[in-house]
Amino acid sequence: MTTPDPAAPPLRRRGERMRRAVLAAALDLLASQGLAGATVGAVARAAGVHETSVYRRWGTRENLILDALTTELDSALPVPDTGRVRDDLLGYFSALARLLSTAQGRALLRLSVEHDDTLDDRRGAYWSDRLDRAAVMVRRGAERRELAADTDPGLLIEAVSGPLFTRVLLSGAPLDETLVRGLVDLVLEGARTRP
Amino acid sequence: MTTPDPAAPPLRRRGERMRRAVLAAALDLLASQGLAGATVGAVARAAGVHETSVYRRWGTRENLILDALTTELDSALPVPDTGRVRDDLLGYFSALARLLSTAQGRALLRLSVEHDDTLDDRRGAYWSDRLDRAAVMVRRGAERRELAADTDPGLLIEAVSGPLFTRVLLSGAPLDETLVRGLVDLVLEGARTRP
Repeated sequence: MTTPDPAAPPLRRRGERMRRAVLAAALDLLASQGLAGATVGAVARAAGVHETSVYRRWGTRENLILDALTTELDSALPVPDTGRVRDDLLGYFSALARLLSTAQGRALLRLSVEHDDTLDDRRGAYWSDRLDRAAVMVRRGAERRELAADTDPGLLIEAVSGPLFTRVLLSGAPLDETLVRGLVDLVLEGARTRP
Repeated sequence: MTTPDPAAPPLRRRGERMRRAVLAAALDLLASQGLAGATVGAVARAAGVHETSVYRRWGTRENLILDALTTELDSALPVPDTGRVRDDLLGYFSALARLLSTAQGRALLRLSVEHDDTLDDRRGAYWSDRLDRAAVMVRRGAERRELAADTDPGLLIEAVSGPLFTRVLLSGAPLDETLVRGLVDLVLEGARTRP
């Protein structure tokens, strides 16, 4: 049995630090060089760890990339719970618009539409999973009777997020607060005149 | 002066036939082989015309591709005018959903997000132009007082088209009538409960 060095950080903390360094390096490489540039070798070199350590922890390049993307977006996109559905939606989609306005956010989104047979199956599910987490804001709004009981949570989330994604991917039009507010109010209030 | 052969089609009609053959060949190649495959040489060969005739008419490969895409989508996506905004929107977006459900429609959309420096500037405008044409349905609805006077036509069109584009590009989820009807009713009626 070896005696642990009391000055060394506990193993779990060191493992977590290594994980963070590798995921940060993966995100940097994804954003700067795209999917093709984020090889296990390049990520390991940028993070200053051995390639074998990366394979030991993540098994495959695919798992590494998905872990990096998931960790990044889930921390950049907390789901608010203010007690009012409009405030929750504005908070969430403003954060998404800000994320998609950064070079890294755009790169992550573009990456999702790049062709790569090894990643295709799970990347579709990846964005769906992120948006599924957002649906709880709508369900809470329906429970509080702010929204009609038959509101489709996923559909409402798609109607606001779809235009943001589309602007980044297709038109290049800017994402700003006015756009987010306009979309949220449109899906909440509707465009039809009231009798 | 030469005497025209009375059996030959007039020059303009022959020119139009050649134009259609070239545009159809360009669309086929775009759909089957992507942007890279739709070279002027390949299009000319597939259409059975001389490469020089293509250059004489379109000048550049860029003009040829944009002409092909514009002609195809404008004829596949007529803007209805039924006198009722909901019917107009359902008709238009059902046609867009059907177009995006075909292999060619998906290819055309994917093409728009492929990187190609020679096309980037005008492709962004391309989809925006198509959707601008659709905004007239919303403006007519506001003139008929079906919609609130301050309705933003472009925003409403984006809120319905964005999710359709996003499903094709990101999630791979299906585009069906239920989706189109749900989105149209959401932006018309809103999700909020009425007092």
